[in-house]
Amino acid sequence: MFRGLSAFPLTPTSEQGIDEAAYAALVARLAAAGGDSIGALGSTGGYAYLTREQRARAAQIAVGAADGVPVIVGIGALRTAHVLELAEDAQKAGVSGVLLAPMTYQLLTEDEVFGLYEDVTRELSVPLCVYDNPGTTHVQFTDELHGRIAQLPNVGSIKIPGVPDDPREAQLRVDALRTLIPDTVTIGVSGDWTAARGLNAGCDAWYSVIGGTFPQTALALTRAAQAGHADQAAELSEGLEPLWALFRRHGSLRVISAAASHLGLTQEPNLPRPLRGLDETARQEVVAALDALGLTS
Amino acid sequence: MFRGLSAFPLTPTSEQGIDEAAYAALVARLAAAGGDSIGALGSTGGYAYLTREQRARAAQIAVGAADGVPVIVGIGALRTAHVLELAEDAQKAGVSGVLLAPMTYQLLTEDEVFGLYEDVTRELSVPLCVYDNPGTTHVQFTDELHGRIAQLPNVGSIKIPGVPDDPREAQLRVDALRTLIPDTVTIGVSGDWTAARGLNAGCDAWYSVIGGTFPQTALALTRAAQAGHADQAAELSEGLEPLWALFRRHGSLRVISAAASHLGLTQEPNLPRPLRGLDETARQEVVAALDALGLTS
Repeated sequence: MFRGLSAFPLTPTSEQGIDEAAYAALVARLAAAGGDSIGALGSTGGYAYLTREQRARAAQIAVGAADGVPVIVGIGALRTAHVLELAEDAQKAGVSGVLLAPMTYQLLTEDEVFGLYEDVTRELSVPLCVYDNPGTTHVQFTDELHGRIAQLPNVGSIKIPGVPDDPREAQLRVDALRTLIPDTVTIGVSGDWTAARGLNAGCDAWYSVIGGTFPQTALALTRAAQAGHADQAAELSEGLEPLWALFRRHGSLRVISAAASHLGLTQEPNLPRPLRGLDETARQEVVAALDALGLTS
Repeated sequence: MFRGLSAFPLTPTSEQGIDEAAYAALVARLAAAGGDSIGALGSTGGYAYLTREQRARAAQIAVGAADGVPVIVGIGALRTAHVLELAEDAQKAGVSGVLLAPMTYQLLTEDEVFGLYEDVTRELSVPLCVYDNPGTTHVQFTDELHGRIAQLPNVGSIKIPGVPDDPREAQLRVDALRTLIPDTVTIGVSGDWTAARGLNAGCDAWYSVIGGTFPQTALALTRAAQAGHADQAAELSEGLEPLWALFRRHGSLRVISAAASHLGLTQEPNLPRPLRGLDETARQEVVAALDALGLTS
């Protein structure tokens, strides 16, 4: 399950709550596109902003709409006890795996991060993907910490936050991590603009933001890399550079929020406050990039 | 209310929940000590790890135990809608003020931070203290942003994260902020090891971690500075350097957690997982520092 393209949809959310119909349609669209899994309630899915009840309901909707495609659900929370509740809810909803970032308010020590994964993996009956995202959690995973956590029961994958720009350095980075983790644990790349380099360097999966809204585009890149067509994967990624530039400038979440509403997949606002959509200028840049790339449906 | 010593107690919390009896006793001890306000459910009070229900209950307990001393309650949450619920609960509990840090998962733009305070202050019937704590929120407030927020209705204070080491630079920093905010908005210093410098530079309040467990010590320093005895305040702070060094090394929360249990004010564990108490070596350093400073009751 933690291989190939994992597509991370928005959870369209306003001050009135989750737009459940739009969410089910987004997930069904991804399932129909032929990806390998759906990453529901990831950072793009706004898990950190939703209540336990909303997250349980979203997990149920995602599993129902996924039509048999494996659903991975984010169970992160600031407190271990709450993570355990979310894991229970997700498993009851029938998810195939869970995704856990070590959210922080107080900065955590390495032993505290390890302890979180130890406390949670012990209670799981589905595999877990370790979500390494320093941009949101401010936890700096060392490879040694990844190695310790990857030995825990039920750990199936590590979602890394992107690979270096230089393809050889990307290869070294993936190889170094690989030597420290069991063969049963896959490595998945995120940071969409580094995905082709990550897959070409041997990452097993792409945990993809763009895949949650433009699944065919992400799938073409993934399948090229999986077939060993590294140059083709790199070219497909280079072609998307106008979008990657906007991701880096505004954050992928806000760009995808604008793109999804431009495509008519969601209403606006689709992000919960205090998050706000892009301003009009940035929004026009997104639309221009989508038009130029032919990403209009 | 946002003047003098505001003492921030722990909320003793284990996997079994909040130790309500210990919490009420901690607050009552602060009220008896003669501080100017009690900062319940601040970072030291672990607000970010508690449910809405636990926070409502803790606010009620704090107001009940404070015996008329003004209680300020932290209402921070990742989502604006949840902040508004927490504000309502706190006001129903009878708090005198609220404290709001812009918690983040996705990094927030300046306009999003401003929008949060705009949305929340509009609904308040008690004054608000803006809680600037980049160490936990990763929001870097500019003075210009402070100036914009301080114009909003119901803003009564700004809790700044410490002042520079050099007393003249500390003075310049406080003076610069003062020129941008209304006269009705006070400035309070935090980062306990900078408190004497902050108060000597004209900060109106000390939002104090040590004051939540050792109120007499914090009060002596505060009253010296308020009386214009800058050298005495600085000396009192210098005398506490062994404790400040431990705060900087381990985080003030973990040190105060160990100190409070050493004094018999709480059981252990008193921090919610994933947070863990200090290891045995660090704990012995805390006990040695407390003994050397005579902070034994």
